[in-house]
Amino acid sequence: MKVADIMTKTVITIRGHKTILEAVKLMKEYELYALIVERRHSEDAYGIITETDIIKKVTAYGKDPKKIRVYEVMKKPCVVVNPNLSVEYVARLFADMNIRCAPVIRDELIGIISATDILVKSDFLETPKEVFFEQEIERAVAEARRICNEKGHNSQECKIAWDMVEELQAEAAHQRAQRLEKTALEEYLEEYPEASDALDLDNWCSG
Amino acid sequence: MKVADIMTKTVITIRGHKTILEAVKLMKEYELYALIVERRHSEDAYGIITETDIIKKVTAYGKDPKKIRVYEVMKKPCVVVNPNLSVEYVARLFADMNIRCAPVIRDELIGIISATDILVKSDFLETPKEVFFEQEIERAVAEARRICNEKGHNSQECKIAWDMVEELQAEAAHQRAQRLEKTALEEYLEEYPEASDALDLDNWCSG
Amino acid sequence: MKVADIMTKTVITIRGHKTILEAVKLMKEYELYALIVERRHSEDAYGIITETDIIKKVTAYGKDPKKIRVYEVMKKPCVVVNPNLSVEYVARLFADMNIRCAPVIRDELIGIISATDILVKSDFLETPKEVFFEQEIERAVAEARRICNEKGHNSQECKIAWDMVEELQAEAAHQRAQRLEKTALEEYLEEYPEASDALDLDNWCSG
Amino acid sequence: MKVADIMTKTVITIRGHKTILEAVKLMKEYELYALIVERRHSEDAYGIITETDIIKKVTAYGKDPKKIRVYEVMKKPCVVVNPNLSVEYVARLFADMNIRCAPVIRDELIGIISATDILVKSDFLETPKEVFFEQEIERAVAEARRICNEKGHNSQECKIAWDMVEELQAEAAHQRAQRLEKTALEEYLEEYPEASDALDLDNWCSG
Amino acid sequence: MKVADIMTKTVITIRGHKTILEAVKLMKEYELYALIVERRHSEDAYGIITETDIIKKVTAYGKDPKKIRVYEVMKKPCVVVNPNLSVEYVARLFADMNIRCAPVIRDELIGIISATDILVKSDFLETPKEVFFEQEIERAVAEARRICNEKGHNSQECKIAWDMVEELQAEAAHQRAQRLEKTALEEYLEEYPEASDALDLDNWCSG
Amino acid sequence: MKVADIMTKTVITIRGHKTILEAVKLMKEYELYALIVERRHSEDAYGIITETDIIKKVTAYGKDPKKIRVYEVMKKPCVVVNPNLSVEYVARLFADMNIRCAPVIRDELIGIISATDILVKSDFLETPKEVFFEQEIERAVAEARRICNEKGHNSQECKIAWDMVEELQAEAAHQRAQRLEKTALEEYLEEYPEASDALDLDNWCSG
Repeated sequence: MKVADIMTKTVITIRGHKTILEAVKLMKEYELYALIVERRHSEDAYGIITETDIIKKVTAYGKDPKKIRVYEVMKKPCVVVNPNLSVEYVARLFADMNIRCAPVIRDELIGIISATDILVKSDFLETPKEVFFEQEIERAVAEARRICNEKGHNSQECKIAWDMVEELQAEAAHQRAQRLEKTALEEYLEEYPEASDALDLDNWCSG
Repeated sequence: MKVADIMTKTVITIRGHKTILEAVKLMKEYELYALIVERRHSEDAYGIITETDIIKKVTAYGKDPKKIRVYEVMKKPCVVVNPNLSVEYVARLFADMNIRCAPVIRDELIGIISATDILVKSDFLETPKEVFFEQEIERAVAEARRICNEKGHNSQECKIAWDMVEELQAEAAHQRAQRLEKTALEEYLEEYPEASDALDLDNWCSG
Repeated sequence: MKVADIMTKTVITIRGHKTILEAVKLMKEYELYALIVERRHSEDAYGIITETDIIKKVTAYGKDPKKIRVYEVMKKPCVVVNPNLSVEYVARLFADMNIRCAPVIRDELIGIISATDILVKSDFLETPKEVFFEQEIERAVAEARRICNEKGHNSQECKIAWDMVEELQAEAAHQRAQRLEKTALEEYLEEYPEASDALDLDNWCSG
Repeated sequence: MKVADIMTKTVITIRGHKTILEAVKLMKEYELYALIVERRHSEDAYGIITETDIIKKVTAYGKDPKKIRVYEVMKKPCVVVNPNLSVEYVARLFADMNIRCAPVIRDELIGIISATDILVKSDFLETPKEVFFEQEIERAVAEARRICNEKGHNSQECKIAWDMVEELQAEAAHQRAQRLEKTALEEYLEEYPEASDALDLDNWCSG
Repeated sequence: MKVADIMTKTVITIRGHKTILEAVKLMKEYELYALIVERRHSEDAYGIITETDIIKKVTAYGKDPKKIRVYEVMKKPCVVVNPNLSVEYVARLFADMNIRCAPVIRDELIGIISATDILVKSDFLETPKEVFFEQEIERAVAEARRICNEKGHNSQECKIAWDMVEELQAEAAHQRAQRLEKTALEEYLEEYPEASDALDLDNWCSG
Repeated sequence: MKVADIMTKTVITIRGHKTILEAVKLMKEYELYALIVERRHSEDAYGIITETDIIKKVTAYGKDPKKIRVYEVMKKPCVVVNPNLSVEYVARLFADMNIRCAPVIRDELIGIISATDILVKSDFLETPKEVFFEQEIERAVAEARRICNEKGHNSQECKIAWDMVEELQAEAAHQRAQRLEKTALEEYLEEYPEASDALDLDNWCSG
């Protein structure tokens, strides 16, 4: 599942010189956690103003929302998200950057994605990535073994198949923030030590 | 306005050994950002599990929500809030502690308060604290001047009145995170230098 | 051991409009790391001012302690602690919130607890929680096995006993920030697979 | 000046399963602070691995660079930058996100931008944004005054002209992280109070 | 006042393979917040283990202090302090680095300095740096004016005197984290515009 | 390898009252990431100004580099490094303190060390510390076994030899941020339980 599948397509925008009072009214009316701050021209950056920003910078200091403007509180430029990004990666991006929502941009603004969208609309409960990757890797390993068996350890096809396995395992390990003790290729090479020159992928890739 | 006035009284709780799958189901069913984790006995601490915790620790790593338990993700003990706390101070606490919601406790759990409650239900838009304090201080200064005029600079009543003004100004200045250039008492003492011995509050208070 | 057992009962308070000079004098006189800032009225929040606050905001900038007031430096509202909180949990709270001491409140201020109190007065050296929990769990598992043996896997008593074990293990695992590989109940169900319907605690608990 | 004008167009990429040894060799060979980690397929996210990541996660722990893989150290997904972003905004993004470089993406990878590129190749020394905005605003105010004078306070053109001034001032104030004491429009309305209904931009804009 | 004047000269050290139990015993016996971890040889780095480290990494997780070693908890290498550092600068270093104490090194370990030493033993209450700098600058300005008057604006002595003033003002401004609106030299040059070529210090200094 | 072996010996300094414009010119001319800020007198602290400081505090806010002075942006005092510090420890210090370079001081300024120096000039690629320690520990264990065999478990020499092994293992474990499951001495004592009184190092050391 991708960002495009779960994002909220109706985005409410506001301009930077509006007051916080107006921003909160819009948030209440549309039941929103965040508004996107409009660009001044087509090459300008997007900004964002969130409930948290207003709590932290206005309410916490007892300031008058009629006297504070959006530009004093917004974050601009803000982190933007590509509609093709997978749900797990947008979650990782939110975690790393300590944010809860971001505009989705493909040339122009096409939606907004929040932590709630991920929790409520995505399929991470039913098909978590770790299960997905396990199956994917199993399939790729079987395929690589079949190809190398058929075409020989020295064949270009065999190399490419193992290279894909390596990359897939690296990705899965990164996703779970865990180390691989042994890659599938290393296991294969223990079985077929004679293949080790032919399949020394690192040399081959950088060669 | 106080926490008790705007908190959500219906709180959904969960136990620590339940799975994330069950936690998310409850969150979806009740449209909640956070669940309170039940205490094991009456003197135990409260815990909390939020949408953000799940995004950061489960979804971002592609982990299976059926295999992760609430205790692996919850924050326990969590910051708790007193129902008498003013709206501005709970906003300040949220800002300082980088949290978005907290259980409200008076001996036992009586509600939950979130940033959204503050934004949607409080009166910070209509009567921001800075306006409130300005009026309060004005009144207190007038009162102190009247009392000292009546009872004399050396009277205990005059001292107490100015002490209240000082404290109120300190509070207002703290609320807005600003320094006072000159306190109302200092201004008064410039007008009536002869009162300065009698009203040297610092000496008097610590005496 | 609880906070009430090791907290310092004599608390020195100061008012928000006093100068840093006065705060430091009190700290020196009573050999204190922190002072509690008095509330303005019975529903106000408590504040705290610590040695670290003064070093960071006054000394580090060469400012004159006679000209800076307590309210400019204090943290208000501050995190407060319940006298029933266990020593390990107050340590966890201090670690999570990056603080070194907090007022202890039960309706009103009854003490102050610091990292030094924990290190010097608690029994964490002699009876660390991990040892305590190991024994507790062992006992609870033995009890659950005995009850289920006596009353049968379908009995309410058996369910309750295992539910307590699960909760206790979850707590112990949370305390040590470690995952359980297998719970005691899961081990038991491997031994007695016929009990698995009756003891499917998750279904039962949410039923 | 925009990112596209100062970015480095030659980007060296690496794959996630390569070792840190290989990454450092590439960094030395091309005198680079960072490598971009290739995507696995056209809809995958970009990753980045920097000198700082390697120092912090490999060298600081004395680990063997031959045994650690890029995916264990890289940041993926990483913050990406649009080639149209202004130099000042990319600096702000770097400051807010605590990063020193980022891939530049327009559909696909077209360059990499670093703090050094900003310092060495941009024109922020000669024409700092604050000077630029001052001139821009001066011009826009003159223009708005001229238009309103010509077409009248009630004209649509007058409103649009002042709206642009407001937006420009908001932008400039945001850029410098400063409040506006009074906007140019507010000054104008003091001069021509009769225009205040016609130019109540806030009502008009949201109408 | 310098670090050497207020540091604690008796330092208790411990070795890295000792247990936390032993470390806490030493801390209790000598009433210490921190122990210095001995170097393995004369060119090794110093380490430090503090009360906070133990609370955060041992007590908060209920771990057994008999089973955890000092090296698992210590910070090594740690920030070290020069005995000549001024009290204000060590306070600034503590604030910037978020630490509360550090070993004092001059070739070898000669003491330990803590936030408490600064608060209790230094003279920052009586002679805060901001007052000190004001007097110092006043004197330096008077001196520069006298010299330039005597020797002429073109004299080397005049230049050197103003250069010292500039540097002193920069230092004082840095100490207070404030900008100078106008330097004393700039004021002087407004009075004596004819001196401006001769005293264009920036050109002269870098020439 | 030590800091002295890989540091950059030519250091460019600047004075605190110079402008950012002048600082950036020097950085461009000498292709530097950082300048050291000169001390005002021989007992003053060193300061540092880096590319990142300028990006974050000047460029990001569109400020005019001709109007901002070095002292407004520099970090003073800064973390300093001893020329004897090992490469791995300077990497750890950089990681812990979140810095990228530091002045190298032995009584006075003798160089500057950056993350790039570590990556490009050190031998961490060829001889990572973990390999080095493994060999060192193996040798020390063999030596301790030989000595104890020759001189007896009760000999002072045997004790000293095992003490060195313990310390070395502690160091290696700290370096890799890993716990020792069992120390070499503990394994030895399982083999020779009769030696356990004689070699109870903890008692002996603190005795």
